[in-house]
Amino acid sequence: ALDSVAGIRAVLCLFEGVCTGAADGYGRMTGSPALTLLHLGPGFANGIANLHNARRAHTPIVNLIGDHASWHLEHDAPLTSDVESLARPVSAWVRSVEHANELAPAVAEAIAAARTPPGGVATLVARSDAQWNDAAGPRAAQAPAPAPAVPPKRIARAADLLKAPGSPALLLGGAALRGDPLRRAQRIAAGSGCRLISDTFVPRLERGAGVPPVERLPYFPEQARAFLEPVSALVVVGSRPPVSFFGYRGQPSLLAPDATESFVLAHPGEDLAGALDALAERAGSAEAAPSLAAPPQPEPPTGGLSPETLGAALAATQPEGAIVVDEAATSGLPWFLASAGSPPHDLLGLTGGAIGQGLPCATGAALACPERRVIAFQADGSGAYTLQALWTQAREGLDVTTVLCSNRSYRILQVELARAGIAEPGPVARSLTELDGPPLDWCALARGFGVPASRPANAEELATALQKSFAEPGPHLVQVDL
Amino acid sequence: ALDSVAGIRAVLCLFEGVCTGAADGYGRMTGSPALTLLHLGPGFANGIANLHNARRAHTPIVNLIGDHASWHLEHDAPLTSDVESLARPVSAWVRSVEHANELAPAVAEAIAAARTPPGGVATLVARSDAQWNDAAGPRAAQAPAPAPAVPPKRIARAADLLKAPGSPALLLGGAALRGDPLRRAQRIAAGSGCRLISDTFVPRLERGAGVPPVERLPYFPEQARAFLEPVSALVVVGSRPPVSFFGYRGQPSLLAPDATESFVLAHPGEDLAGALDALAERAGSAEAAPSLAAPPQPEPPTGGLSPETLGAALAATQPEGAIVVDEAATSGLPWFLASAGSPPHDLLGLTGGAIGQGLPCATGAALACPERRVIAFQADGSGAYTLQALWTQAREGLDVTTVLCSNRSYRILQVELARAGIAEPGPVARSLTELDGPPLDWCALARGFGVPASRPANAEELATALQKSFAEPGPHLVQVDL
Repeated sequence: ALDSVAGIRAVLCLFEGVCTGAADGYGRMTGSPALTLLHLGPGFANGIANLHNARRAHTPIVNLIGDHASWHLEHDAPLTSDVESLARPVSAWVRSVEHANELAPAVAEAIAAARTPPGGVATLVARSDAQWNDAAGPRAAQAPAPAPAVPPKRIARAADLLKAPGSPALLLGGAALRGDPLRRAQRIAAGSGCRLISDTFVPRLERGAGVPPVERLPYFPEQARAFLEPVSALVVVGSRPPVSFFGYRGQPSLLAPDATESFVLAHPGEDLAGALDALAERAGSAEAAPSLAAPPQPEPPTGGLSPETLGAALAATQPEGAIVVDEAATSGLPWFLASAGSPPHDLLGLTGGAIGQGLPCATGAALACPERRVIAFQADGSGAYTLQALWTQAREGLDVTTVLCSNRSYRILQVELARAGIAEPGPVARSLTELDGPPLDWCALARGFGVPASRPANAEELATALQKSFAEPGPHLVQVDL
Repeated sequence: ALDSVAGIRAVLCLFEGVCTGAADGYGRMTGSPALTLLHLGPGFANGIANLHNARRAHTPIVNLIGDHASWHLEHDAPLTSDVESLARPVSAWVRSVEHANELAPAVAEAIAAARTPPGGVATLVARSDAQWNDAAGPRAAQAPAPAPAVPPKRIARAADLLKAPGSPALLLGGAALRGDPLRRAQRIAAGSGCRLISDTFVPRLERGAGVPPVERLPYFPEQARAFLEPVSALVVVGSRPPVSFFGYRGQPSLLAPDATESFVLAHPGEDLAGALDALAERAGSAEAAPSLAAPPQPEPPTGGLSPETLGAALAATQPEGAIVVDEAATSGLPWFLASAGSPPHDLLGLTGGAIGQGLPCATGAALACPERRVIAFQADGSGAYTLQALWTQAREGLDVTTVLCSNRSYRILQVELARAGIAEPGPVARSLTELDGPPLDWCALARGFGVPASRPANAEELATALQKSFAEPGPHLVQVDL
């Protein structure tokens, strides 16, 4: 059918986790669902981790899982499994279709479910007889449910919180992190004096020179709590009151200190733009956007390679309109700080914590936005999860620059060991956090998948390699030894 | 704890699917469960596909999944998911532990569950507070339930079927495919005149010169039905009446023709050896093992590279005691036919059809049997799923030779398209079955993971490369362009 129905671009991935991660990147950039085509329960299972991230990002995705013929299922052939049990934890909508006549309406319903605000994962299991039997013609598209408006009582309460004495803040998520809603939030901040904060891991954040700046909540709970300490009230728009990524002994799960009131103005699926408009009327709003004194874009750095010089080199060279997929983990913070004044760009984060998202998500973002450069800012440990994405980038000629942060360790696990009081792990525990012996040769791996690669020796060479890759079409990998 | 408790070998894998596949290979070779250590729902999810294969192979495995602290779960932090819903489809036993005092007994129970015949996947979800809170000391090991004996009535019925006029056969599975039970089955065959047949995909089959030969059921249903046509009665020992891998239009699910009576003598979890002993008494058995005129081991071939010369080269050179993990898919049949007279070896098959099993399974088999050479006989499409296994092979110095069959296509999909009546697929459908553009450079990929590699140009060079790799310690990859 792909050869007879126009308007579908079929993209082959070497692993389902690449496919679902690419669908996540595509959906985050377009707001429309990509369709994944997956093979029974085990094929779907390979895509679950990145669907988990997509679920947390509220990305619209439609999964189409081909399953056995309905009459074959009872015989429990080797590939048979309980697909729905696997699908439910990551899906907002699941349905199995047995009859050909149900397939077209079910697909229309799946697309509508995926597009229903705030967006979600819709999983359709199609028995093979439902695919090969005769059926009535296609079904017209079905409109997604609209985003419900936020009740006036909540608007009033949020406005009171912003106007009360103290130091309130707006915690923004989802569609409030970009475009008009973000600018509306900025004018509310200018008018009311509140701060703008985002979650640590964002589906898609617009930032850079000239874009309203948003402070990012720190990752570790004690840092996050210290960051929120001065905040008198946290008015949440399109997110949730922030929760610690992990639960630690003797630390609470909720990050806002007791003295900080958290109030959800708009849940993710509600009309965020309308809520911000209404809030602006009640809480005050600057007439025009404040003129921003953006921090300067840094100069390309000199010296050895480190997270700091890497961050500066990337921030100094990234082109306007770049899409930065940030799975750099412990290597990423210096870039985030350095790039506040870089040309406007989008930041796509690891919303669900399921590592192995970066290279696939970058692949999908590049498919969605062929006119923009995508930067896969990638840690090595997580990059090794789904490195097969590089092949799809080569095959489709996608403009993706992978900046591979090679620190040859699961650094975050070393940090967590220390946080758990194990300052000097024994040799076995330590070895489970080390990726040396042998180190991964990322240039060889990239070339094996058809992607050219380079390995700069210092910060100057790194900046040159980045500039060269941004100027040339197609994918490139830069291995940065940290 | 891994540094203070002796007797555990900790092996790091770059992806959970490698870890679970390695546990499958280890369990198939030792009969004892390896323990996988996995990170919340998404980490477990990455391992599901190979656990699906392990479930079908009845491999003992214990999964230990670290989950959030019990009091943190309700806050639905980013990595939170319904782990049990993900675990149930591949697990014979699932339990979540909230309290530290329950953890040791639960682990003992998990190990016993994994070892209960015929073996299975046991999944234990441990909240992190159950891991860090104080608890009473360790719990003694718990004996698995014994395999139930087969009732005499079934023995009598099976004996009647073997003695009745016609051409009966024993269909062997599980533990009946090796060791004493296989030799007992051979004597029954010699005594009663029945044939010995195995499923198409076997957990572990002993074969080669001097080993009782077992015929393998063909893969495609029409071939399997033709193969079974002359069989008057199929007496099943440790398997199930055979089922078509997929359901095809107008073809039945069950492979045995109507005239062939299928009778299950012993289900997989029952006492197979005892059932064969009892059957030998009732149905007749040769006093001694028949002397076997094994087909000769082939000479190393000459000429170009093809599935036929590859199969001959491998069959001609494979060392005694080799463990062949067969995920060669459409490139594998010539080797299977050519190796009947090769030195005794074990064959490990793709029991669940979830591709991406070969390289991980070979890794685990090599960990289990350091004195034997493991041959990962691997197709390229499925090999790309979990190629990260090569790194663990390099790191642990495992004696694994990967024979990478590079036909640059999902050949089986091309076959299935043709079987579905699409003899000339359009360019889009065809492109989704082709791995060219760019072709994978498997030597570069292997070197990127620290594994030396070679790419012979013809059959002579191939045989030389194989011999060299079998003689040298450590892993090696041979890319065979077909």
